[in-house]
Parts: sequence; C-alpha cells; structure tokens
Amino acid sequence: MKIAIVGCGAVGLYYGARLERSGQEVHFLMRSDYASARAAGISVVASDGDFVVSPARAHRDPVSIGICDLVIVSLKTTSNDALPALLGPLVGDRTALLTLQNGLGNDELLAMLFPWNSILSGLCFVCLNRVAPAKVESFLLGSVSIGAFSPAATGLAQEVVAMFAKSGVETRFAADLRLTQWKKLVWNVPFNGLAIAAGGVATDVIIGRDELMELTRALMQEVLDGAAALGLTIEPSYIDFQIDRTRKMGAYKPSSMIDFLDGRPVEVECIWGEPLRRAQGAGAKLPRLEMLYALLKQLCQS
Amino acid sequence: MKIAIVGCGAVGLYYGARLERSGQEVHFLMRSDYASARAAGISVVASDGDFVVSPARAHRDPVSIGICDLVIVSLKTTSNDALPALLGPLVGDRTALLTLQNGLGNDELLAMLFPWNSILSGLCFVCLNRVAPAKVESFLLGSVSIGAFSPAATGLAQEVVAMFAKSGVETRFAADLRLTQWKKLVWNVPFNGLAIAAGGVATDVIIGRDELMELTRALMQEVLDGAAALGLTIEPSYIDFQIDRTRKMGAYKPSSMIDFLDGRPVEVECIWGEPLRRAQGAGAKLPRLEMLYALLKQLCQS
Repeated sequence: MKIAIVGCGAVGLYYGARLERSGQEVHFLMRSDYASARAAGISVVASDGDFVVSPARAHRDPVSIGICDLVIVSLKTTSNDALPALLGPLVGDRTALLTLQNGLGNDELLAMLFPWNSILSGLCFVCLNRVAPAKVESFLLGSVSIGAFSPAATGLAQEVVAMFAKSGVETRFAADLRLTQWKKLVWNVPFNGLAIAAGGVATDVIIGRDELMELTRALMQEVLDGAAALGLTIEPSYIDFQIDRTRKMGAYKPSSMIDFLDGRPVEVECIWGEPLRRAQGAGAKLPRLEMLYALLKQLCQS
Repeated sequence: MKIAIVGCGAVGLYYGARLERSGQEVHFLMRSDYASARAAGISVVASDGDFVVSPARAHRDPVSIGICDLVIVSLKTTSNDALPALLGPLVGDRTALLTLQNGLGNDELLAMLFPWNSILSGLCFVCLNRVAPAKVESFLLGSVSIGAFSPAATGLAQEVVAMFAKSGVETRFAADLRLTQWKKLVWNVPFNGLAIAAGGVATDVIIGRDELMELTRALMQEVLDGAAALGLTIEPSYIDFQIDRTRKMGAYKPSSMIDFLDGRPVEVECIWGEPLRRAQGAGAKLPRLEMLYALLKQLCQS
C-alpha cells in the first residue's frame, strides 16, 4: 500500500517507520527532519527492538509523492489550516485518510475537505518523544484504536487495523469512535491541562498533591458528564483506572506541557475548546473545564 | 494616642505616616526600611499632597516601643506566625489591636492571641505601592472601613474611625464587618487570582478577554454564593459595580501578582483558602474558587 505521512513529529515518524519496515511503501512529508532522514534514515528506539528505516522515502513537497492509497495525518492540530495545501496533491478519488491527531474535530475537518473519500480516525495511547531529527523513542509500546468516521468505511478501517497490527503495533478496531475519543479526553483534559496551568509540573506532582488530585478527579467527572450529555456512556470506574495507570508513569511530562515550556503552540482548541463547546451545546454544565479552557487559552496564546 | 505599626509595607507606612502627621505618636516597627526612615523619615506621595514624617519613630525591636494604646497590624498574612513574638511587648491590658490585613482569619487570630483585648478590623480599598525604602506612593486615595470584632469594641471602633478621618483618610464605620470583608473578596478573589493563574496579566487583560471576563463574573458569583451560605447578602449588582470600577483602572497589577512575579510569598490562604473553607463548611458549592485555590496553592508555593 502506498502511504503518505503528513506531519512527521513523534507519532508520524514512529508509525510510518513501523509500516515501512513491515513492507508498506511509506512516503514521509518532512520539513526540519528532511536532511537527516535522507542521509541516515529514520531511527526508532523501542522496547521490542530498535531499528532504522534507511534510506527513508523523504519528501519536502507533497507533489513529489503524488496520489496515495492512504494518507496518515499526524500533523499538530494547531497547523490544521495548512492541510488543504498539503493534502491536495496526495488525495485522489480512491485515497483514504486516517487522522492520528489529538482531540476532537479532526475527522470532521477531513470529511469536510474530502467529502467523497473514506475517513478513518485513530487514537494513539502511547508515550513517544522525538529525541533528535528523524529519531523517535517509544517509552511505552501502548496501543492504537482505529475506527471509521462513516459506517461505509468500516471494512477499510478493519483492513488498516490489520496493517498496523502486522507492523508490530497493538491495534484495536474502535467500533464506537466517538466514545473512544472521549475516553482519551478523560486523561488528556486534566493531565495535559493541569501540567500547564499548575505551572509546568509532571504527572507525579499532580497525583501527589491533594488539591490537584481532587481537581483531576473532578475534571475527569466533567468529561464523563460531557460525554453523557452527548449520549456516550463511560463507566465511573474508568476514572480510577486512569489514575492508577498514571501513578505508575512516575514523573511523566505530557506533550502539551513540553510544547508550552518550549514556547511551541499548544493544541488548546482540539483538546479543551472543542469538547467543551460540544458538551455545552448538549446542555452539560462543566465549570472546571470551562475555567481550564479560559486559563489555557490565555496562557498558551502565541 | 500611642500607636505601633507592625508590618511596614505600603499599607503600614501610608496610614502610619498620616496618623503621625495628624498628631498621633506613631512608632514604626521596621526591618528593611529602618535605616532609611531614621535618616530621612517616611515619605508619602499622594494626590492630596506629598509629605515627609521626619524624623520617624523607627524601631527594630518591639521592646524599644513598649506598651501602646493601639497596635495596627499591617503585616503580610504569610508572616502571621511571627505575630506572637512581635506583638507581645506592645500589648498591655488596655491595648487595642487593629488588623488592616488581607482576607479572612486575621481578626480571629488576634482575638485568639489576646482574648481580653479589644480587636478591630479594617479593610483598605486603595492602590498603594512602596516605591523605595520608607517611601510609599498612593495611586488612589480610596477609603478604609473599620469595624469591631466583638460588639463590646464598637465604641472604640468609632473612635478609631474618627482618628483615621482626622488624618485625611476617607474612613467609614463597618457595622457589619463580615459582610464588608466578603465584599472586598468579590474583587480580590478573581482579580488577584486570575492575574496569577492566567500567567501574570494585569486587570485590563482579564477585562479584555471574553473567556476571562466570564470566568471573573462566575468567580464573583461564587463569592456571593459563599457569602449567602454564611448568611451575608451581597446584591448581584455589586458584580457589575466592581467590573465597571476595574475597567477604569486600566492596566492595574494586583499586589498578589506583583508578589508572585517577584518570587515573594502570596497570601493564598487568607484570600482564597479560608473563604473557600468557610463557605464549603456552610454547604456552598464553589467549583471555580476550589479550582483557583488548588492552582494558586501549587503555583505560589515557596
């Protein structure tokens, strides 16, 4: 399968390199990492074995890639306004698109841009860092859940799940994509948000202070309430499950907090703004999420 | 009247100098400003006329002041644990104490330390800055409201109100001290708090951004709800009054935010923690104040 990776941060590099190694034809659309990838390939450091994809099919321009079977969008959502120009040359009548981006609204955006193409959406439950140009390190193999934006793409979603699984990634078919997206928000909303709003602290600090831990639980409950208002049921026990899981991570620095401290854009709208608007539109009252969004919008403005 | 000023920041310097100029015998207990005050007195810059109190009665140790008729406590509340040692040498059987400190809990603390003495509590609605050692500048003459902690001290409170008024300060007798304290919190809770939590921004930024303005109103409403749970009625129109007043201040930097940015202790407990605990103890649900307190406690820890 001819695949393009649009957005070669940690997520794009990692899954693209795995798919390439497993026999797919993967083209990477790159900016800053182009020279490194051309010279030395793409390096992956992972607990199931390090490897290099060399020489990587690296491109500076989507035109030199051309029409693909599948375009994987792993661009940071704060750059979504660049998508029409980046995707145009890659997408033909039969091209499928898979977004692996954070938060809500990305699959809708792709469906709006390409209403006649199959749109898939994937959620990555991983800990990845881009540690050098064209080099990514996995701290947790984790898993990916992939689902179809529209029911007609269900068969295709299952094929892509199988392709990811063949590349050594634990991958599940997400029968209920909306529910899976909101479940991921149960973690991202409080931990990415409080890590910034509490002054640049890792997860162990949030877990370790009574007031911040109570606030984390209250924010998680608000995400559950927001999901419920939209007809999506997340069991209350999922809160304890996520907190226990986070306790084992130690001093983990959420990606949004690293972006914030380094002065890069933070994905405020897709992680906090869009979920808040959807849940409020469905009648939910979410005072803490609303407050967190207001603070982050101010703190993270570029 | 022999008066001691304990805590010679902007508030202590300003009111102490005015009382001294109006004929009272005012002793200043100082640390960092001692040498300047001894050498050149205490300078006040104010719209009704600049003046210097010279030579000021400056002291390094309360023992050299001795027993007073009135002790004015203007120490930062984060140093309240020093009060027993500082006040001991100043307080005799007939000494009255007046706290001009921020937030809740200070009059109770004095009443606990000196259960047989008259305790007064004053609220300063002013904009003061200590601009140099022993020099304070007033940006707004403002007013002071003084009330009695226990009904028995009502007559004395009225005498002290008259004494302040004679010094050129607009001063009112606060018949309902608790209500007056909560009314001051309507401003201090959101503006001092959000100026810090939103990243060190002045009041004009808070007023100017939709999300922060809505959050300010919601926090003010929670302070009204907290007061109501304690049996104190503040009219809803007071919210608009405070916002209009603040709009006219321009880019005002709340004192807590200046302390925060300069790395000095912030009065988190008296302005946010104690009001929250009291209101919650009376059954009020205040999710935004609770969240603000949790964030400030983390952000401002020394």
